[in-house]
Amino acid sequence: MKNFKINPDIVKIPLSKREAILAAMKGKTNLANLAAGNPDMPMPKTIVDRMTAYISSGYAPYSDYYGFPELRQKLSQMLQSQWQITADPDTDLFITCGVQEGLYVIMRTILQPGDEVLIPSPHYGTYFQNTVACGAKPVLVPLDEADGFVPDMERLAQAVTPQTRALVFCNPSNPLGIVWPQATIEALADFALKHALLVLVDEIYHDYIFTTPPPSIAALPGMKTHTFTFGGFSKSYLMMGLRIGFVVGPVELMSAVKKLHYCVALCPSVIGQIAAMAAFDCTAEELQPIITEFQEKLEMLYKGVAALPGVSCVRPGGSFFIFPNFKNYGSDSMSLALRLIEEAGVITLPGTEFGELGEGYLRLSVCAKREEVEEGLKRLQNFIHQNT
Amino acid sequence: MKNFKINPDIVKIPLSKREAILAAMKGKTNLANLAAGNPDMPMPKTIVDRMTAYISSGYAPYSDYYGFPELRQKLSQMLQSQWQITADPDTDLFITCGVQEGLYVIMRTILQPGDEVLIPSPHYGTYFQNTVACGAKPVLVPLDEADGFVPDMERLAQAVTPQTRALVFCNPSNPLGIVWPQATIEALADFALKHALLVLVDEIYHDYIFTTPPPSIAALPGMKTHTFTFGGFSKSYLMMGLRIGFVVGPVELMSAVKKLHYCVALCPSVIGQIAAMAAFDCTAEELQPIITEFQEKLEMLYKGVAALPGVSCVRPGGSFFIFPNFKNYGSDSMSLALRLIEEAGVITLPGTEFGELGEGYLRLSVCAKREEVEEGLKRLQNFIHQNT
Repeated sequence: MKNFKINPDIVKIPLSKREAILAAMKGKTNLANLAAGNPDMPMPKTIVDRMTAYISSGYAPYSDYYGFPELRQKLSQMLQSQWQITADPDTDLFITCGVQEGLYVIMRTILQPGDEVLIPSPHYGTYFQNTVACGAKPVLVPLDEADGFVPDMERLAQAVTPQTRALVFCNPSNPLGIVWPQATIEALADFALKHALLVLVDEIYHDYIFTTPPPSIAALPGMKTHTFTFGGFSKSYLMMGLRIGFVVGPVELMSAVKKLHYCVALCPSVIGQIAAMAAFDCTAEELQPIITEFQEKLEMLYKGVAALPGVSCVRPGGSFFIFPNFKNYGSDSMSLALRLIEEAGVITLPGTEFGELGEGYLRLSVCAKREEVEEGLKRLQNFIHQNT
Repeated sequence: MKNFKINPDIVKIPLSKREAILAAMKGKTNLANLAAGNPDMPMPKTIVDRMTAYISSGYAPYSDYYGFPELRQKLSQMLQSQWQITADPDTDLFITCGVQEGLYVIMRTILQPGDEVLIPSPHYGTYFQNTVACGAKPVLVPLDEADGFVPDMERLAQAVTPQTRALVFCNPSNPLGIVWPQATIEALADFALKHALLVLVDEIYHDYIFTTPPPSIAALPGMKTHTFTFGGFSKSYLMMGLRIGFVVGPVELMSAVKKLHYCVALCPSVIGQIAAMAAFDCTAEELQPIITEFQEKLEMLYKGVAALPGVSCVRPGGSFFIFPNFKNYGSDSMSLALRLIEEAGVITLPGTEFGELGEGYLRLSVCAKREEVEEGLKRLQNFIHQNT
């Protein structure tokens, strides 16, 4: 056959190296999973009941390209009352097939070859991958464990060039587990306004904040026209596989983004949108135990890991993750993660899954059931005690 | 605010002009809809039952990025036995969030700025829009009603330049309703091999062929390495809103495409995949009446429209559509479509929704229930008799 050309931007998208982890797991049973991204918990009954009733009709038509108007209306009200973001449901937001689709269509719309994107790092891999997929240049800005992984504003300013277009981060952070406080968010807003940057903020863990909640950066003065805010229903309502998220952004840019969303997705899943509508009707009695369960598991794991000899860990403020420093147990995170599978029967992710600045760290999650997280911690403790 | 730059490729994506149709419909009740794209029919019971059982567990986790391995396995077997396409379920195909997502990720992977894409036209709008979204140039190759909308191979050859990278079409055709026969598919295969072009073929209406079924172009000698074949569950199983499709393509190109799919979608909907799994277990007793219903409605509409004075129509071979010529009733399709809403109470789509070569035509669909299609035809007949 002819040697067909492939778009070099797409070829360059860096692959996750998770294959090595999966290969090491192969054939092993009784592993404790501290790497899971899928919370092992069912959706609230209100959502299950509404989905069941909807499906009984047998109908599953295409929906409005940008999501049910009623869903956009409910979302707009929620953003106003809970996130302090004012967003017209017809022009300033739309429903995406998860945050992943939202991030892609925004980045592809606002970036051009040669543009630069600031990514505080360690970071969620997609921010880097999408930047590359758009032919733009990811500029990693190191976050220091010694600073609690809060960005150094001077270092951020030094990374700005005439090509810098955007800053992308998540708060709370996957993989770091930390929540940047109000002062940091305010400093980032000043920074974005001063350098005329767009801010892309992924707030998928918004409902899992276990410390003083910081503001959404889009809610700060002058920031609505500079910010794309991403959120979703996957984590808060345990409907990850239904693929429903949203993005709210500057009206001047959204009409172009919406055209690309149409090309990429046509419309979001109709049954996913039914579930998202039901999410607004869940009771506090249904939701609070979910939040509490993750908070307690995360606290338990953090305390256990921070107490390990030779291991340091920044105290988590939210999300499902901690990001402890295991440099005293080898400088190669992947080797350590593979040893932990082989020798301790516990699955973790190497920090390098979140960029080269994650070297020496592991990401541990509390998505597994409580007993499995406890068992994983015990195995980690045994491993450390055998190796010190 | 700063005047933020938007990627010019995304700005240039041509919008549908359907807004004018929607505006004309506003406030009117009792319109007969011959424009619908959503079949007004429920999913087979086998699918509804399986979805209901799945949801009762309450779990909706992320799935494999490329779709359930079992679903890919079943799809591979179906493609072999029914489409005569050999495809390794791990490397040659993956599950997409509908054909729309599949088309986008393939086109973005194989196209670069300056490339040209041949689009036999009138055409489905997304082929043109995606080409523009990739910074490439759509080259429309006219299909003549006098030829039954079958491509003129000489005209196609004349459109080839050193920049031509791909040919994209659907068979059966939306909007034309025709099915290109075996001889045409073979000629197109020769053409693609001779000019070293990639072929993108959208076979979403594969199960709605009411004439001698032509081969899938990927099944012809030498074509597997030159063809991306798109299909889905939306039309065959009435699960449009569940957003599950697939793409099968040359293994040499699929690993790059799969990286972009990960960036764009993360994974397809899990409940949609459950429905797709169940689709393979539907009985002929469940499926045949669906096919027959559309076949009968299409035949009825075709006969009625072809008999209208001053209207010509190529006999449909498949899909949900006919594409009659109304040039004797005004050269501006949009004006005619708007008049039909205002004066006759029937909704149609102007042929120009499918490119400028659709001027003078209307696209009529049989997605509405039989009585509504009959009523729409009656109203069209009345309108024509009042205007001749």
